Amino acid sequence: MEKLSINELKELEKLSILCRGDILKMTTLAGSGHPGGSLSSIDMYLTVYKMANISPDNYKSLDRDRIIVSHGHTSPGVYSVLGRNGFFDIDEAIAYFRLAGSIFEGHIERMVPGVEWTTGNLGQGLSAACGMALAAKYFSKSYNVYCFMGDGEQQKGQISEARRFAIKYRLNNLIAFVDYNRLQISGNIADVMPQNIKDEYIADGWAVLEIDGHNFEEISRAIIEANKIERPVLILAHTIMGKGVSFMENKEVYHGKALSEEQLDEALKELGIENDLEKYKKMRANFSFDETKHEIFRYEINIDTGIPKTYGVKVKTDNRSAFGAAITDLVQLNSLKSDSNPILVFDCDLAGSVKTDKVAADFKEYFYESGIQEHHTATCAGAASVNGIVSFFADFGVFGIDETYNQQRLNDINDTNLKVVTTHVGIDVGEDGKTHQCIDYIGVMRNLYGFKVIVPADPNQTDRAVRYAASKYGNFLISMGRSKTAVIPDENGKPFFGEDYVFEYGKIDIIRDGEIPLLSYGSMLQRGLEVVEILKNEGLNLALLNVSCPFHLDKDTLLKFKDSKIWFTYEDHNVNSGLGAIIADFIATNGLGIKLVKFGIKNYSYSGKPDNIFSLIGLSPKAIAADIKSYL
Amino acid sequence: MEKLSINELKELEKLSILCRGDILKMTTLAGSGHPGGSLSSIDMYLTVYKMANISPDNYKSLDRDRIIVSHGHTSPGVYSVLGRNGFFDIDEAIAYFRLAGSIFEGHIERMVPGVEWTTGNLGQGLSAACGMALAAKYFSKSYNVYCFMGDGEQQKGQISEARRFAIKYRLNNLIAFVDYNRLQISGNIADVMPQNIKDEYIADGWAVLEIDGHNFEEISRAIIEANKIERPVLILAHTIMGKGVSFMENKEVYHGKALSEEQLDEALKELGIENDLEKYKKMRANFSFDETKHEIFRYEINIDTGIPKTYGVKVKTDNRSAFGAAITDLVQLNSLKSDSNPILVFDCDLAGSVKTDKVAADFKEYFYESGIQEHHTATCAGAASVNGIVSFFADFGVFGIDETYNQQRLNDINDTNLKVVTTHVGIDVGEDGKTHQCIDYIGVMRNLYGFKVIVPADPNQTDRAVRYAASKYGNFLISMGRSKTAVIPDENGKPFFGEDYVFEYGKIDIIRDGEIPLLSYGSMLQRGLEVVEILKNEGLNLALLNVSCPFHLDKDTLLKFKDSKIWFTYEDHNVNSGLGAIIADFIATNGLGIKLVKFGIKNYSYSGKPDNIFSLIGLSPKAIAADIKSYL
Repeated sequence: MEKLSINELKELEKLSILCRGDILKMTTLAGSGHPGGSLSSIDMYLTVYKMANISPDNYKSLDRDRIIVSHGHTSPGVYSVLGRNGFFDIDEAIAYFRLAGSIFEGHIERMVPGVEWTTGNLGQGLSAACGMALAAKYFSKSYNVYCFMGDGEQQKGQISEARRFAIKYRLNNLIAFVDYNRLQISGNIADVMPQNIKDEYIADGWAVLEIDGHNFEEISRAIIEANKIERPVLILAHTIMGKGVSFMENKEVYHGKALSEEQLDEALKELGIENDLEKYKKMRANFSFDETKHEIFRYEINIDTGIPKTYGVKVKTDNRSAFGAAITDLVQLNSLKSDSNPILVFDCDLAGSVKTDKVAADFKEYFYESGIQEHHTATCAGAASVNGIVSFFADFGVFGIDETYNQQRLNDINDTNLKVVTTHVGIDVGEDGKTHQCIDYIGVMRNLYGFKVIVPADPNQTDRAVRYAASKYGNFLISMGRSKTAVIPDENGKPFFGEDYVFEYGKIDIIRDGEIPLLSYGSMLQRGLEVVEILKNEGLNLALLNVSCPFHLDKDTLLKFKDSKIWFTYEDHNVNSGLGAIIADFIATNGLGIKLVKFGIKNYSYSGKPDNIFSLIGLSPKAIAADIKSYL
Repeated sequence: MEKLSINELKELEKLSILCRGDILKMTTLAGSGHPGGSLSSIDMYLTVYKMANISPDNYKSLDRDRIIVSHGHTSPGVYSVLGRNGFFDIDEAIAYFRLAGSIFEGHIERMVPGVEWTTGNLGQGLSAACGMALAAKYFSKSYNVYCFMGDGEQQKGQISEARRFAIKYRLNNLIAFVDYNRLQISGNIADVMPQNIKDEYIADGWAVLEIDGHNFEEISRAIIEANKIERPVLILAHTIMGKGVSFMENKEVYHGKALSEEQLDEALKELGIENDLEKYKKMRANFSFDETKHEIFRYEINIDTGIPKTYGVKVKTDNRSAFGAAITDLVQLNSLKSDSNPILVFDCDLAGSVKTDKVAADFKEYFYESGIQEHHTATCAGAASVNGIVSFFADFGVFGIDETYNQQRLNDINDTNLKVVTTHVGIDVGEDGKTHQCIDYIGVMRNLYGFKVIVPADPNQTDRAVRYAASKYGNFLISMGRSKTAVIPDENGKPFFGEDYVFEYGKIDIIRDGEIPLLSYGSMLQRGLEVVEILKNEGLNLALLNVSCPFHLDKDTLLKFKDSKIWFTYEDHNVNSGLGAIIADFIATNGLGIKLVKFGIKNYSYSGKPDNIFSLIGLSPKAIAADIKSYL
């Protein structure tokens, strides 16, 4: 990396004035947005985009440098730099900023050419940068990852997690910037929440360089120096909010407030830029919506799914062990193939329980141990996966879903290729009690549009589902309990999900045919089978359906039972938000006129062996059989 | 606070042996649990319970010292100390540990006498301790708050947030311990996730004392010293996992593994304790479940709700301003009354937007500015509220719900008295785009059993709902959009929620009567009114129902419309998980045979003015009126 020449520095100076004009015009035109921080970060953005290996020609190549902007509200700044560097027509960004249907949204998003990661909820950018930085080695690339952050944002705990992770995994290709303008929405950061940013980074092992964030020579020198330091580096850049417009400087009100047209005129005069707002007003009035511009680029994924493993009906193992065997097989198989995408496994101090310990032991370079840092890990795994990686993040349900819901939401908005595997869901986790009983995994994830959810019934279905999810681009949640599970048998006593079984996403399996359907899934299915058998002995002919993909219902199979006046659901999940709620939705929105009886968990539960708890709360197979009988 | 005498120290030594025996017996009997960390923390627990002002006689008094154990899996240690100090019968704790229906659960919970805060999900304890520490001054109490944490747990980012908060608010009555045994589940903490715990606390401004955590004299001296230091203090206690049983020491396997009966026998011999396991086995076999033991103690709450404010139909304001006016009124009113409970307002750098800025300006001592630290703030506000405080945590929906879901879940399990007020929910937030559009607030909170959710329709209903929630013990979510809202008029053009309106939780308001119901709420209700008016002009007679409490449906009102073959829902929320889903559930589980048509948001949306976005995605009143017509 070479020093910038005097001419190049002069060119940056000129560009920075144009960009300031762009920022002010687009925010005034939209009547909202964040000009203050944009003006404060813009000189750094310009310098990094100048020096880094990223351009309109290579922004889809695997070896480009990555630039993450964590404080995504500085979108006007980002759009102006990208536009002025030819990633798209700058006039469109100015004209269509924050206009419904435009890609130039209030916070930066991945469909904009050159934007690597959708941000907006603060504190996640450094974790995303870690994910992209670690991905480099799997493609024998030496690219850098630059991560810009705000200073107020440093208050978020997730950043401390990311800092430690970067040190542990020697992500020396990671260079972070803090835009240290000392103002956040509520005022001076020292008043809002006193913090020693520099000391915190040093305590965690980072190198810290301090510069003037509006001096192009200092910025470029720091980038060159940071590239030489064999550690993650923070460039703490002293800046001025609203920099370049005298009446905006150091005023926190401009964090999130656009100038009026009169103020804009005054500001443009000060910058020496022509006021051509009318031109953009006309463009804005003639905007035409194009859905295809909102598509996000995906790398193609090629995974060898190997040979499925079939567990015999006499085997009694847990689904998580079946997951562990499958993921170990997948990592091994694909690590040997040059045309396979790398499969990485992320852990939060639970490898032994979630059964990724064999990957940890035997395929160390495909395994990332993050410690008890779930927020960071969820984001890091997600961000790695948009770079040609297949990420598996295995954790207990309460950590991989409940604790990290917003991180998974942002992953989903980012269209990541993340496989979240949560074990220990349901009351099935048993003695660990309420805080560990993830009885909301369907209900919580139901709010995300992109995630596909699979809750396999037994070790055989688990094996197939894991191999399937690994090979398909996109976000999956695969959930399972803790306890050992019976291998579900067919009517002949053979494994229902046997040698010939092929997992089909969305398919409902008729485990036992009959007239009145009992719908279940996961670890409850084996209890459902007990219910059906008890009732069979009493002359009642129930069908047992396995709904392993609750978000994408197999309508044809369900409608086979439309003549039954009553349906039952039975689940180890909050009764308000699980499969029962989804089936109710199906019944009501299709106007089927069927009565639904839902069996599920009605309150935070107890700590004890699952069977004992189910008995205590009226959900044992015997109790359910009696209940069903009373309805028929 | 006085030095412990030699006799007292000797007594602690003796007790510590008995407690070690208790820990080992209860875990072996249960066949699971966490003996390793319990043995490592037990000597500190004993010393603090000895020196702190807490006993079976005063554990419900407001001036007791508070002891929080953040690493709640050391429950065997906590139960043994509490039992040996007379909070309950130690034999019951040993016999019933982790038995379904017993209060001695796998992780400590608040229904156990002496347990201040239910924990289990790591990283939240220090925030809870902050909440209890700040509560002290409102009751003119000088109590101390002691907080125990694990060392692996220090990796959680939320702890860094809590550290800063404690310094900012000079919580000098806060003394924290880290049980520094250097082992977490996956092995040595330095291998799992290298961290400079001491330096991190110092960087954030804490005083740090280092001691031997198994030396009673050192522990007690450190407590006395910490009490003198005018800063939050961390006592970094070097300990040994499994301490006291030679073959368990420094073995991470005993983090979460009980001894076999043979090993127990060996360990008890080493400790010089009689093996009376048979006695406990018999007790365990005869356990009888008592639901009343699971009840959590609540302080009575007394709040003056003041005089409701009525906004006329010509007023156009936003619900958040109505919230702002109401909360300012409530804080002022109750701050003046000696028999009122204090109302505290917690903010995360958004006071101006969520309209708590007037409280911040005029009632500074009732206002806590946490910066961008939502995880900490949610827990801190929750924990303050179990100590006689009424906590209001106001934030944007994506931060107060999505980002902090697991903190709210733990608050709910803790039966807190927290009022979460989220503004900027829905697409109504507009230009900030996908990352800021909280279109899942009903769907996510639906998973919590205790929270009551209110989504007021206009400023008048907002005013009443806020006053109502402040006066009732329990967890409430009150959600509102960003935009200005019409005051909902009755048929005579007067405010529907006028002078005489009294908020009734769970009531459905018939805004306009008719034959076919259109159910709506929040900022969409005004659009629903437009729909009804459009259709009225076309001769269709729709009823408009306001479902402001979606979790507790008013069955009688709904059943008035049971003869309509079709119902419609219309909401600014994910269509899969909002009111539509709840109404579908009502229809199907009651077997009503009604067809439901749900209008809501089908994907992550765009950035722009709400009306423009609604038009783009087919949710404008005009589009909905046309759709409804096509069904009739």
